[in-house]
Amino acid sequence: MIAAPFPVSDPGGSPLPIAPGGQRVRSDLVAAMDVGGTSIKAGLVAADGTVVREARRPTGAEGGVPAVIDRILGFAADLVAGEQVKAIGIGVPGIVDSAAGIARYAANLGWRDVPIVQLLTERVGLPVVLGHDVRLGALAEARVGAGVGAASMYFIAIGTGIAGGQVTGGAVDNGATGQAGEVGHLVVRPGGRLCNCGNHGCLETVSSASRIGQSYSLLRGTDASSTSAREVAELMQAGDPIAIQVWDDAIAALADALAAVTVLTDPGRIVLGGGLSLAGELLTDPLAEALASRMTFRSPPPIAVTQLGDRAGLAGAAILAWDHLRHQPSTLGESMSAVAAGEGGTADD
Amino acid sequence: MIAAPFPVSDPGGSPLPIAPGGQRVRSDLVAAMDVGGTSIKAGLVAADGTVVREARRPTGAEGGVPAVIDRILGFAADLVAGEQVKAIGIGVPGIVDSAAGIARYAANLGWRDVPIVQLLTERVGLPVVLGHDVRLGALAEARVGAGVGAASMYFIAIGTGIAGGQVTGGAVDNGATGQAGEVGHLVVRPGGRLCNCGNHGCLETVSSASRIGQSYSLLRGTDASSTSAREVAELMQAGDPIAIQVWDDAIAALADALAAVTVLTDPGRIVLGGGLSLAGELLTDPLAEALASRMTFRSPPPIAVTQLGDRAGLAGAAILAWDHLRHQPSTLGESMSAVAAGEGGTADD
Repeated sequence: MIAAPFPVSDPGGSPLPIAPGGQRVRSDLVAAMDVGGTSIKAGLVAADGTVVREARRPTGAEGGVPAVIDRILGFAADLVAGEQVKAIGIGVPGIVDSAAGIARYAANLGWRDVPIVQLLTERVGLPVVLGHDVRLGALAEARVGAGVGAASMYFIAIGTGIAGGQVTGGAVDNGATGQAGEVGHLVVRPGGRLCNCGNHGCLETVSSASRIGQSYSLLRGTDASSTSAREVAELMQAGDPIAIQVWDDAIAALADALAAVTVLTDPGRIVLGGGLSLAGELLTDPLAEALASRMTFRSPPPIAVTQLGDRAGLAGAAILAWDHLRHQPSTLGESMSAVAAGEGGTADD
Repeated sequence: MIAAPFPVSDPGGSPLPIAPGGQRVRSDLVAAMDVGGTSIKAGLVAADGTVVREARRPTGAEGGVPAVIDRILGFAADLVAGEQVKAIGIGVPGIVDSAAGIARYAANLGWRDVPIVQLLTERVGLPVVLGHDVRLGALAEARVGAGVGAASMYFIAIGTGIAGGQVTGGAVDNGATGQAGEVGHLVVRPGGRLCNCGNHGCLETVSSASRIGQSYSLLRGTDASSTSAREVAELMQAGDPIAIQVWDDAIAALADALAAVTVLTDPGRIVLGGGLSLAGELLTDPLAEALASRMTFRSPPPIAVTQLGDRAGLAGAAILAWDHLRHQPSTLGESMSAVAAGEGGTADD
C-alpha cells in the first residue's frame, strides 16, 4: 500500500529520484513507529516525506510488558527487512528520556525504565531515536501540518488525557527532564476534582474527552462510562442543557489553560489535536472566543486544528529519524550544544 | 573605573590579549545598555566578559519621550567615543520587537513604537541589537549567572512588576510576538484584585514587591505606599501576623505560578531576580516548599537566586551584542532558521 504522504522533508527536499526510463529508483528510508495504548502505528518514509509503507498492529498491552516489547521489536524487524532503512524514529507516551533512550514511565503500557533504544538497536542494527508521542505530534504539525508558517506553535492533544508541546523555529521543547507539555496537569480549578496525578482541579479533570463524557453521565445520573464526548457534542447541538453546561465548562477550562500558555510562551499559533479536535468548529469557535475574552493586554494567538490527525505522532517519528540522519536539531537546546562544542566560530577567529 | 567582570563569553572565550612585554593590547569591545524607568545602565565589555567601563545615568522619564531618547543616544555616543566598539546591545522594558528593532510599548517610559535600533545606528554608525530587559537578564543568568550548568532555566524578576524568561540551551524565548514571559499576568487568583492590565487576579496583584507593601499597608489601614516589601519581610520576621499573612499569600501565588511554569515548560532550574530576591532564604525556602507541595507526579526544579543582581540586564545586552558579532543565536528559533536557509546539510548530499 502506498499511503498518503506526509511532506516530512523541508521545502528543499527532493522528490524520489526517477531513473532514465521513468523507473523509480530505490531510495533511502527511515522507519517511524508510534506506540499507543491500543495500537502501534508504523511506516517507512522517504526523504521527501513519501510514505512507502504504512501499517498498524495492536499493542496488546493486556499481555504484559515483555509481550508488548517483543511486538514492537518484531514489528520493527518486519518493517526494515529488505528495505534501505537508515534509522528508526519511535514515539512512546509517558515520561521519555530521549537523550538516554529510555522510556521512563508509561501508565497505559505499564512501562518503567524500558531501554527501548538499546533493545531496538540490538534487534535491527540501526540508529534509533526516541521521542514523546505528543511532542512528536507537535513537531510534525509545526513542520508539515497546521503549524506551517508560524514562528512558534503550541500543540495540545485532547483525548483520554491531555498533553501538549511547544515548537519554536521547528524544534520541540522536551524540557530539562523530558516532562515539558504536561498542560493536562495545569491546575485550572483549584480544589476541584481529584486527578489521576493526585492533584485537584487539573485541566484533564474537566476537559479531556473521557471526562467530558463522564461528567455528562454523572450529571444525568447514569453509568460513568455510558456517554462519549462525541455524544455530548451531539446532545449539546440538540439543546440538551446538561450537555451545554458540560461542554461550556470544558471550553472554559481549556481557555484558562491556553491563556496561561499564551502569557507564558506567546505561541504564534495554537493547534488542537486528539480525539476532541474532531468536533471542529464546535470546539474552536467558542474556544477562540473564550481565549480572546481572557486577553486584556494582547491579542490571542489564532487557533487551528490538526492537519495530520492521528498520524501526527507517526509523522513526527519520521521527522525525528530524518533529522538525526541530517544532524539537524529536532529539539530545543541541541543547536546551542553544537555551538558550545565548537562548531560555531567566534568574531575573534 | 574597571568594574567587576561579567564572564559573558562562552567557556572557549580567550582572555584579553597581552603583547610581548606584558602590555595589554586594546581589544574589541561591545557597548551594552539597559534602559530602566529610573536609570540607564551602560558598559563596555570585552569578548571575555571583562567590563572595561561601566556607568549609570538617570533616565529622566519625567522629561518626556524625546528627552529620554536623546539621553540614550548621547550616552551611547559618549560610551563608544575613542573605543574599538564593534556593536551595541540594548535592553528596554515592555513589548519589544527585536527583529524589527522597535520598542513597541513601554509604560514606564511612555514609549510607543520607538525605532530605537535605527536611531542608535544613525547616531553611532554601529550595528545595534535590541532585546527585552528581563529576557536579557534571563539570558545572562543562564549563560554566566545562576543558571550555568542547567539544561534550561526559568528566570523570574520580581520587583515593581513581575516578568520572566525561559532559556533553553543558552537561547532565550522571545515568543512569536515578543511577549513571552508575561508571568506577572498569569491569573493565579481568578476573580481577585484588579490588575493594571485590566484583568483580575494576576500574579502581580499579589506577589510584586510593590503590591506586598501595599497589601500590608491596606490591611493595617495606613496609606497604601507607606510600607515597602523589605519592611514587610522585617515585620514578618518580628512575628507581625499581618506581615506573615501578606508574605504567605505572596509566596503561595508565586508557587502557583511557578507550578504552572514547571508543568508547562519543565525548566531545569528556576532563578529569582528583581528586588524581592534580596530577601534570600526568606523567599526561597518557603517558596521551594510551597512549589514542592504542588508537585504530585514529578519533583520540582531547584530554585536559586540571581548572581548578577541588577546588572543581569546589562550583562544580557553585552551577550546579545557579542552573539550578534559571532553569528551565534541568542534567541530560540534563530538556529533553525539558519538550517532552513540552507546552512545545514542533508543526508542526501
